Amino acid sequence: MTARPSGGRLAPVPDRDDTLFTTRTPRVVAARRLHRRRDRDTTGRFLAEGPQAVREALAVPGVVAELFGTPAALDRYADLAATAARAGMPVSPLTDEALAALTETVAPQGLVAVCHHLDVSLAAALDRAPRLVTVLAGIRDPGNAGTVLRTADAAGAGAVVFAGETVDPYNGKSVRSSAGSLFHVDVVRAGDPAEVVTTLRAAGLTVLAASGYGETDLDDLADAGGLATPTAWLFGSEAHGLPAELADAADARVRVPLHGRAESLNLAAAAAVCLYASARALRARRTTPS
Amino acid sequence: MTARPSGGRLAPVPDRDDTLFTTRTPRVVAARRLHRRRDRDTTGRFLAEGPQAVREALAVPGVVAELFGTPAALDRYADLAATAARAGMPVSPLTDEALAALTETVAPQGLVAVCHHLDVSLAAALDRAPRLVTVLAGIRDPGNAGTVLRTADAAGAGAVVFAGETVDPYNGKSVRSSAGSLFHVDVVRAGDPAEVVTTLRAAGLTVLAASGYGETDLDDLADAGGLATPTAWLFGSEAHGLPAELADAADARVRVPLHGRAESLNLAAAAAVCLYASARALRARRTTPS
Repeated sequence: MTARPSGGRLAPVPDRDDTLFTTRTPRVVAARRLHRRRDRDTTGRFLAEGPQAVREALAVPGVVAELFGTPAALDRYADLAATAARAGMPVSPLTDEALAALTETVAPQGLVAVCHHLDVSLAAALDRAPRLVTVLAGIRDPGNAGTVLRTADAAGAGAVVFAGETVDPYNGKSVRSSAGSLFHVDVVRAGDPAEVVTTLRAAGLTVLAASGYGETDLDDLADAGGLATPTAWLFGSEAHGLPAELADAADARVRVPLHGRAESLNLAAAAAVCLYASARALRARRTTPS
Repeated sequence: MTARPSGGRLAPVPDRDDTLFTTRTPRVVAARRLHRRRDRDTTGRFLAEGPQAVREALAVPGVVAELFGTPAALDRYADLAATAARAGMPVSPLTDEALAALTETVAPQGLVAVCHHLDVSLAAALDRAPRLVTVLAGIRDPGNAGTVLRTADAAGAGAVVFAGETVDPYNGKSVRSSAGSLFHVDVVRAGDPAEVVTTLRAAGLTVLAASGYGETDLDDLADAGGLATPTAWLFGSEAHGLPAELADAADARVRVPLHGRAESLNLAAAAAVCLYASARALRARRTTPS
């Protein structure tokens, strides 16, 4: 099953280039601009490539604006094309060249969706009373940001806050590295990380700053029961960590213990250890009879 | 302080191109070939770039074969140049262009060392009775391999085994991602991962296979005391995980619990959670009076 170049109705389309969108088709030209942050910010849209991301995006009502795919991919993932079409989204076959212009990976598997930004306000995220929150404060590498978002989702975090100078969550590499988790958790974009910390504490969360120089050992904190209450973790930049003022504003500065001779962990590994320490403590508490 | 183009003695060198090694200097030509695995395997040498890696390499006796640096870098890191020269290694100033030919990062900070392979046999590594061992079985991405090596070092692993189809530990990106940990732990290169498992079990280690489909939950295993004895962790390929036969050969197949909606963790994050769960259990055991 393939789809028509525009409109929501599915119908067989001959696999001929003159029926396909090309790099010169205005809607492809417009979508291609979403590789640039400026255009993402202006339009409130971004690109999600590959069947996994498209499937996750389609699962969130109102997120996908339109779907592009090669005829072969729209055949292969006919369920996704049908879902999009049923929801009234344009489903447009395009040439391999046009697909390549809209995607960044070597093997995008033929599909790419234009999606609406789906971040929510910090207040809205806190209204859902998340027990675990992750704050990225100054993370510059989109692959790292997306990986931490994925790990936070796996660890049960309800919200991930992209604060201050952190990379755009809708950057293509960040979207890909999140492996769908961008569509699972409440993503918040916030300005001043210090204001985020104030708001999180006012909401009753314990705020912990991950820092290689922290005064508190993660294992000691876990043993003391310090991870068993709703917690927000702050992670700083790959190169410089958290600014001192921000770390000082947290309830504690926590270091992952280094048992060998490594001088540090990389950001994504440290975040995984911290978030899973919290997940384990929160899980243990949930299953303890009160 | 700068160094002479060849030989171990330090002496001021005029900052003029005709005194510097270039891309045509035979020793630079030979070193440049080490970007290729075939030449690394044939010569038993590899490249370590940047002052951090050079410092770590120099800390292991007999590892550095020779040091190259721009005149500015040999001035700035005069302590490293002096250490190399005192140990009788050639310390050679080279042009910016020659440095660029020997390095892969945008900012290599002017230094690159030719190093001897430093892997040891599995038997030699086990002679030191490591309490935590990491086995990479089929990891293809050098950045992932280096990152897991770094995390294993941080978690106190004594040995990291690169088995089967795993990437070369001396690949430039792997070396860089390890952030010096290549020089801290016993690195082992082994053929058949199944033989590695047999050898590890014979040495008394509990062998755990990390698997998203494992029958054992990591937290449950930790709660049951299952991580408090010397342990070897197996990690499989990014795309396919561990082959079933290999996972079946382990004492248990262990999954990191997924609390949110993520379908999986990425390899490096899963390894961080598993290795730190072991580190915590082994640490607790060490500090318990017997």
